[in-house]
Formats: sequence, C-alpha cells, structure tokens
Amino acid sequence: MTLIVDIHTHVYPQSYMDMLRARKTVPYVHDPQSNDPPRLIILSSDDDSSIPLDKRGRPVDASYWDIDVKLAFMRRHGINSSVISLANPWLDFLTPAEAQIWAERINDDLEATCARVNRATDPDGTRALHEKETLFAFGTLPLSAPSPSIVVNEIKRLKSLPHLRGVIMGTSGLGKGLDDERLDPVWEALQETQSLLFLHPHYGLPDEAFGGAEATSRYGHVLPLALGFPLETTIAVTRMLLAGVFDRFPRLMILLAHSGGTLPFLAGRIESCILHERNFIANGGDVQGPKRSVWEVLQTNIYLDAVVYGTAGLKAAVAAAGSTDRLLFGTDHPFFPPLDGKEDEDWPSVTTNYKAINASFGDDAESVAAVLGGNAARILDLK
Amino acid sequence: MTLIVDIHTHVYPQSYMDMLRARKTVPYVHDPQSNDPPRLIILSSDDDSSIPLDKRGRPVDASYWDIDVKLAFMRRHGINSSVISLANPWLDFLTPAEAQIWAERINDDLEATCARVNRATDPDGTRALHEKETLFAFGTLPLSAPSPSIVVNEIKRLKSLPHLRGVIMGTSGLGKGLDDERLDPVWEALQETQSLLFLHPHYGLPDEAFGGAEATSRYGHVLPLALGFPLETTIAVTRMLLAGVFDRFPRLMILLAHSGGTLPFLAGRIESCILHERNFIANGGDVQGPKRSVWEVLQTNIYLDAVVYGTAGLKAAVAAAGSTDRLLFGTDHPFFPPLDGKEDEDWPSVTTNYKAINASFGDDAESVAAVLGGNAARILDLK
Repeated sequence: MTLIVDIHTHVYPQSYMDMLRARKTVPYVHDPQSNDPPRLIILSSDDDSSIPLDKRGRPVDASYWDIDVKLAFMRRHGINSSVISLANPWLDFLTPAEAQIWAERINDDLEATCARVNRATDPDGTRALHEKETLFAFGTLPLSAPSPSIVVNEIKRLKSLPHLRGVIMGTSGLGKGLDDERLDPVWEALQETQSLLFLHPHYGLPDEAFGGAEATSRYGHVLPLALGFPLETTIAVTRMLLAGVFDRFPRLMILLAHSGGTLPFLAGRIESCILHERNFIANGGDVQGPKRSVWEVLQTNIYLDAVVYGTAGLKAAVAAAGSTDRLLFGTDHPFFPPLDGKEDEDWPSVTTNYKAINASFGDDAESVAAVLGGNAARILDLK
Repeated sequence: MTLIVDIHTHVYPQSYMDMLRARKTVPYVHDPQSNDPPRLIILSSDDDSSIPLDKRGRPVDASYWDIDVKLAFMRRHGINSSVISLANPWLDFLTPAEAQIWAERINDDLEATCARVNRATDPDGTRALHEKETLFAFGTLPLSAPSPSIVVNEIKRLKSLPHLRGVIMGTSGLGKGLDDERLDPVWEALQETQSLLFLHPHYGLPDEAFGGAEATSRYGHVLPLALGFPLETTIAVTRMLLAGVFDRFPRLMILLAHSGGTLPFLAGRIESCILHERNFIANGGDVQGPKRSVWEVLQTNIYLDAVVYGTAGLKAAVAAAGSTDRLLFGTDHPFFPPLDGKEDEDWPSVTTNYKAINASFGDDAESVAAVLGGNAARILDLK
C-alpha cells in the first residue's frame, strides 16, 4: 500500500469561526437570516457593498471546521495523513494584544485535535502510517505581536507540541513583506529549530493588475485565485531571495503553496534578470544582490506542493527542484469542492492532481510514491 | 545546417528614437550633456525624479536602432532570420491623430529595411534561408486611433507588404485590456487575414504588487521585468480567454512572449478555477464564462516563444502546448546585453536559451530543429 499524505489542507477551528462572526470587516463570517449556510468573507475583493450580505463571499459548510468531515474526505480520497493548517488569513488581522493569545489558542487546539484523532484511529499505537488516518499540523504565528521575540518564543514552543511539524505563514510578514530585516530573528528561529515554513498566499494582487475592480470581479474569483495567489507567493519568495535571506539563513526550509506559485517556471528568467541587473554590486552597482542562485535555493531550501492541476506545472516543478524528492502531494481542502453538492463523490480538484502525478511520473513508481507520501513522511518526520 | 529563426527581436527605428527625444514624459529619450550614451526611459517606474536625468532609465547604444548591429548579432549567434518588431511601448502613448501616421511610417520603414537587407544578403535571390541572413517583421498597430476601423485597415494593408508577417501588440488594447468587446473587429481582421499576433508585455504590475515603489526599485529592474512582465502577459491572455474571445474567434493565432509569461505553468490552475467558479452559467451563475478549455486554446490558438531561460520553463511550455511544434526560438535582442561591454562575445542571455533548448530536447534532433527555426518558417511562411 502506498502512503498518501496531504500537506496542503486547511481548517478554520470553531473558535476561529466564532471570532470571525464577531467581526464586521474583512475577514468576517455572516450568518444569513434564512437557513442558508454561513458566508465566509476573507478576500477584500469579496467585501463588495453592492452585493447583499447574504450573497457576499462564499458559502461554507462543516468541511471548514468539523474534523470528522475532514476524516471522511481523507477516507474517500485514500489519504492516510493530513498535515492540517489554519487557513488564510491566519492571525494577520488581529491587534498585537490579541495575536499572541490567539496563536497559542489555535496551536494548542491543533495539537489537541491531532492527539484526539490519532488516539481514536489507533488506540494501541501499533498500526503503520499507511494503515490508518492520522493528523499532524502546521502551527500559526502571532506576526502582529508587539515584538518578534513573541513570534520566536512561539516557534520554540511549537517544538514541544508532539503533532506540530512547522508553521504556516502568509506573505505580509510583520506587515512589510518577507524581505523585511526585522524578520531575521524569525528566520533564525525557524532555521535553528529546523521547522518547515509553509508559505501560503492570501492577499493576491491589487485589482489594478487585472484592469480595476470591475474587470477583476467580472469573472468571479478566477483572476485573483488563479493568477493573483500564485503571483503573490512568487513575489514573496523572490523578495526573500533578492534580500539575501537565503544567504543569511542557508538552512531555512520553505514549502511553497501551489507548486511555488510560478517560481519553477520563472526561475530562469529571475536568474537571468539578476545576472543582468546593473544595480547589483556584481555588475558595478551599489546594491548587494543575492549570492546564491535561484536554482541552488530551489534545490536546497525549497519544497513544493503538487497542487498545480496538470502535468505542465508538475514537470516544471520537478525540473526546477532537481528531482521528485522535493515535491509533496496536497489537496487544498476544503477549498474547490464539487459544485453540484453531492457528498458521495470524488472531488475533481483532487483527482486532477492525482491524475497529473500519475501522468507525469507514471512509469516511475518510486517517484509517484515519493510525491504522494514518502517525501512528506521523510521531511516532516511523520510516524 | 539547421535553420535558426529569431522571432523575438526588437528595433527602435531612428525616426522613433527621434520622436522619443522630443518628449519629456514616459516614454522618452534623454541625451546626457557628456558623451555618455543616450538614456531610454520607457518604464514608468524608471521615471523617478530622485534619480538624475543622466542616470535615469537605461543606457542605449546602436543595437537599438542600427540594423547592421542587429545583423552582426545574428551572425555571432548563428541566426539566419530575424522577425523584427518595434519594441514596447509601440504607439500606445500617441494621440489618436498621431497614431495612424506613425503606424504607417513605422511599418513602411520595417518593410523597407527588410527588403534592403534581404537584397543585400542575397542579390540574386538564389540562396536558401539557412544560407544567409534575412529579415522579416511584425507590424505595429495604431491602437489609439479614433476608430477600430483604422486599426483594421492597417492589418489589411500589412498583407500587401511582402516582408510583414503579423503584428506585435501590448496588453492595453484600446486602453481597457484585451477583453474589451470593442476589439472584436480587430480580432476578426487578424483571424480573417490569418495574421499572427505577437502579444508582448510592457506595463508590468502596479508597484503595490511588490510592496510599493520603494520595495519595487530596491532590486533595480528585477521584480518588474522578471515577475511583472510575465504576469502582465498571463493576465492579458487569461482575460481574453475568460471573455470568450477564443470562442468567438476560434482561428485567432497568438504568439505569447516569454513562453506565455506564466500561462503554461498556471494553465491547470486557471482551468480548475474556471470549473469551480460559481458565477459562471455552467455552475448555476449568470456570467457566460469561456466555452473552450485553456488546454484546447493552448493547443489550437497559441504559440510560445522559447525565451524562458531554463529547462523547467521549456518543459512546461511543451507540455502545455502538447508538442514542440508550437514553440519558437527568440532572443529578446537588444535587451539583456552582456554587462561587461565586450562586443566580441556571445550573449549569455542568448546562450542560456540555446542551452535550455538542447538540454530539454537534446535527444530529439527533429524537435530541436523545429524549435530553433523550422516552426517559425512553417508558421510564418518564411522563404
């Protein structure tokens, strides 16, 4: 039996949902007067006052918060282990005073959920990983806390929680992006504890990138989700690279959502633009510029999920990563459910990724097994 | 001998340079008081008043306007034919009254240049394409002309110019992007005349996408050129797709710069987001949405240049295109010259693309030959 691990799967714990219910600005939850499902409004482009509240954002169901629904989804799709993470926008929007409290609360809640499920699915602790459902988690960080030391302390505390396997983070960092020097203590703590950082988009691109708000919303969520999200990730990690973060912290481990956004495809162009940039010291300018190449960082520091919905993306991801050893299966659950509302069917968003993995490496069973679960078990020390 | 055709190579004719010299706002040319080379300021991010005029933008040399320098570059790199095109920002910035005059002037100038060079390199017209240097051209369109019919007339007139092989166009269209319905007569004329449209970026992304103007310029041109340009192309062609342009004009032929920006890598995600978009009629919404899939359009309407600087990008491009038959070698000359200023050496920006093509398809000589020149000769009817 092949071990299957889902490293890209989100939860909005009930406590978090209730916190969003108390809010009236993005992100927030709105319960319609009718018996219709609650609406989750997390993207600023969704908070459009011309749309009635009852129709704003997206309808959400128990798959967002009920871990039993997650387990049923796993069983349906043959997934053994899920490494769950708080979904965007995490705690980015909280006041500094709230952030620390909520980070500890969410992370303790994730740990308790994993412990409870894993005891239930294997009371004696005797079954192998591929014979049961288990949960692990990426923690969340209080990035708006008053001082980076609070973030560093939480990174260290996570190592004491047995089911936590790293952290998930957005692209805004302490509010000014991931090339912000004030993040150095955070990178240092992640490197020192060898905690994997799962870098995930949320903010997308400004509407102007798509021709303005009206042009952006004309096609629903397609432009922000299909193009804005991957670019946000690419920009964030490229800014880290250009600022020398990977030169200063050469053992940093980063898992990039959606197969790196577009990093594998653009890596060659990024490297060429760096080599031709007159402002960099290497070319006679006065800006430091990165010392290590994009390719070296891709093959040393970066891991990619396999959530890219096609062989074209997967082939670029593997070519950029140098091997199939850095590519990890994921689903993005509970997002992109089937729209016909049938509960008893496979999710096309998941089967598309399964098919792409088999089509890309189908003649190489070892690579398929590595991408589906072997890599995750090794990198995240799952057992 | 393998025929080598460069389909991505730009010129700024002298007349165009002089027109830019008379301007004081982007785009413009500034001649320093000293004997230093002229400065070309075409990106709005370059027009930074905190930088002295003599240092603003980029220094330009004869490679930008002197066709003999282009021919020397071709000989050095083994290129037989170049399909030259006016570089960005074309005529986008002209008043409607000026646009029509300048489009005709530039296109007649391109035709005359090709005719003159081709007569000089093969006076008797007896040598095969791979035995000589020849030029062909993509024309430019007066998109700010007062009426689309003037654009349509120029598309038709280009068919009477023997060396013109299609048109180059930016992403702003008539000013509102390429999903603007007012462009339908232009698409219709391109389809009817089977003129290839070379879609090329210029505007990039708003500085806010990179964290603001200061964050954007911190790394010179790297973020706008390496990430902004490819995303601009991707957004433009995705908006065309979402608006049903390829449904209404199923025989449109588009060559996308920089291997599609990021389209090959993101095609799967775009398709998945379309299939999950609640606003589209197919999913119970009230917006039409595209009828043909991204994959079908990629394999029917779209051609990709091979200017992507690595095997990762090329592998995605070929997987998305379905075969090597839709991929065409290019250089982006005169951009990305070697920074050490030596004239007698190969350009790393060119050799990187040669190496990537050989590394990606090296065991398949037929594919290498097709990408290097065979595809261009077939698609553009070069002879």
